[in-house]
Amino acid sequence: MLTINRLSLADARILIEGARGRAEEIGVPMCIAVTDESGQLIAFERMDGGKITSTIIAQDKAYTAAGAKRTTESYGEASLPGKPAYGINSAIGGRLLVVAGGIPVIVDGQVVGAVGVSSGTPAQDSDCAQAGIEFFLRGASA
Amino acid sequence: MLTINRLSLADARILIEGARGRAEEIGVPMCIAVTDESGQLIAFERMDGGKITSTIIAQDKAYTAAGAKRTTESYGEASLPGKPAYGINSAIGGRLLVVAGGIPVIVDGQVVGAVGVSSGTPAQDSDCAQAGIEFFLRGASA
Amino acid sequence: MLTINRLSLADARILIEGARGRAEEIGVPMCIAVTDESGQLIAFERMDGGKITSTIIAQDKAYTAAGAKRTTESYGEASLPGKPAYGINSAIGGRLLVVAGGIPVIVDGQVVGAVGVSSGTPAQDSDCAQAGIEFFLRGASA
Amino acid sequence: MLTINRLSLADARILIEGARGRAEEIGVPMCIAVTDESGQLIAFERMDGGKITSTIIAQDKAYTAAGAKRTTESYGEASLPGKPAYGINSAIGGRLLVVAGGIPVIVDGQVVGAVGVSSGTPAQDSDCAQAGIEFFLRGASA
Repeated sequence: MLTINRLSLADARILIEGARGRAEEIGVPMCIAVTDESGQLIAFERMDGGKITSTIIAQDKAYTAAGAKRTTESYGEASLPGKPAYGINSAIGGRLLVVAGGIPVIVDGQVVGAVGVSSGTPAQDSDCAQAGIEFFLRGASA
Repeated sequence: MLTINRLSLADARILIEGARGRAEEIGVPMCIAVTDESGQLIAFERMDGGKITSTIIAQDKAYTAAGAKRTTESYGEASLPGKPAYGINSAIGGRLLVVAGGIPVIVDGQVVGAVGVSSGTPAQDSDCAQAGIEFFLRGASA
Repeated sequence: MLTINRLSLADARILIEGARGRAEEIGVPMCIAVTDESGQLIAFERMDGGKITSTIIAQDKAYTAAGAKRTTESYGEASLPGKPAYGINSAIGGRLLVVAGGIPVIVDGQVVGAVGVSSGTPAQDSDCAQAGIEFFLRGASA
Repeated sequence: MLTINRLSLADARILIEGARGRAEEIGVPMCIAVTDESGQLIAFERMDGGKITSTIIAQDKAYTAAGAKRTTESYGEASLPGKPAYGINSAIGGRLLVVAGGIPVIVDGQVVGAVGVSSGTPAQDSDCAQAGIEFFLRGASA
C-alpha cells in the first residue's frame, strides 16, 4: 500500500485566493483550477470576465502539471520542433498542455496537486499560478 | 483468409519484465503497455511513481507502433514542420504519438505487437521499450 | 493536507492474480483492470481469448467503482427507468458503467482502488472481481 | 505466441457482395462494414442513398460483433432494463451497439471478423448482414 499526500479543499481555496489576488493586481480576470496529485479537479473559479475557452484550458493545465509532475511551460520548450517531446501537445485527446500556466504544488518533495491558470498571456497565467503557490506555501510554513 | 501471429499474455508479461528491469536500473518508474498487432491492450503496469499522464501515453505509443508498424520516434522526424507527415500527431483524436517510446515487436518479419513506455525522457522511454523487446527476443530464441 | 492510502503495483498484481485464478476455474478468459483510488490504471491483463471490447470496459468498470466508491452493479439498479440515476450510464463520455464487474477495494474503511473485470456474463465478471479482492485481503491480513 | 485467423480483403468483398445483394432485393440502400476479428475496418460500402449516420453505425456494429464475439442483436435483449447488461449501450464512447445488424463471422469455431449493416430497420440490417455471411460461407465451402 502506498501513502499519498493530497491537497484538501481548504488548501485549494488558499491556492485560488493567492492566484486571484495576483490576477486582480494585474487586472486580468482569470480562470483558476486546482487539481489533486492525480489531476482530478478540487476547486475552480472563473473570475467575472474570464474566458470561456479557459474554463477547459485551466483545468487541463492543472491536470498536466499534476500528472506529469512538471510545469506546462517546461513542455513548451521540450516540445519545440526537433526537440524530443515534439508533438506531445496533442496527447491524451489534447488535454496535455504545453502552454505556460500549469504548475505542480510540491510539498516535502512530493507533488500534492497543481494549479492551472488561463485567460491572460501565458506569462501572466504562469505568474498568477506561481503567486497562488507562493501564497499557499507561505501560509503552510507560517 | 489471413493467418496472423500475435503476442500472448505470457509474451506480454516477459516484455514488461524486460522493460521494467531496465527502468529499475536507470531509476525511473515507468508506465509500460503492451498491445497486440492490432493495437489492442494485452497488459499494462504503472510502476509506483509512474506518471498519471503516462498511463494513457504509454498505451497510445504502443497502439501507434503496432498500428503503423514503425517506432513512434521515427514519426517525430517525419512530422517536423515542412515534412510530409507534419501535423499527424493530432490524428486519431491525438492517439497517434510521435514521441519516442513506442516500438513494434517484430518476429520473423511480422509485427506481432508493440511496447509503449512513458514517464521518463523520450530517450529513456525508448531505451526501456527496446530493453523489453531484447529481453523477450533472447528468451524466445533460447 | 489529506493523507490517502493507495494500492501499489504489488497490490494490483495480487488482485489480478486472484481474479485470474477464479476466471481460470470457471473457464472464461477475462480482461482484468486495477485502478488506484482516483481511477487511474495501475495494472491490466487480457487473458488469451478475452474480448477486445472488454479491454475498455474492464478499465471503465474499475474507474467507475473507484471514483464513485460503489460497485458498478449497484448502479444498474439505481439507473433503471424511473429511478433517480436513470441515464447516468452515458455520463463521462460513456465511461460510467452500470453493469456488474467493477468493485472498489476497501481497506480500513477507505477506498484504495478498484478492480474491473469484463468478458463473461456480468455475474461472472463480478464473481472474478470479488475473488480478486478476497484473495488480496486474505494476503493482507495473513 | 498466438495464431489468429482473419478475414482478407478478398473475403471482405465477398461478404459485402452478399449483403448488398440482399439489400438490393429488399430495395433498401445500406451502409455495409466489414471488420477483422479485432474490430478494425477492412472494407466499407455506402450504397447510393445509404444514410450518413449509418456510416458510423455500421462500422460500430461490426466492431461490437467482432470484439464481443456475439451479435449486436443479442445485446439488445441482454441490455433491457432489469437485465444484467442494462446500460452497456453507452460503453466505449457509445461504440458498443446493441441494435441488430452486427454479426460475427465464425469459421471453424473462431471469430475471424464481423459484418455490420445499417440504414434499414434493425431487422432488415440484420437480414442483410446474415445474407452476406451465408453468401461468404457458401463460397468458402464450395
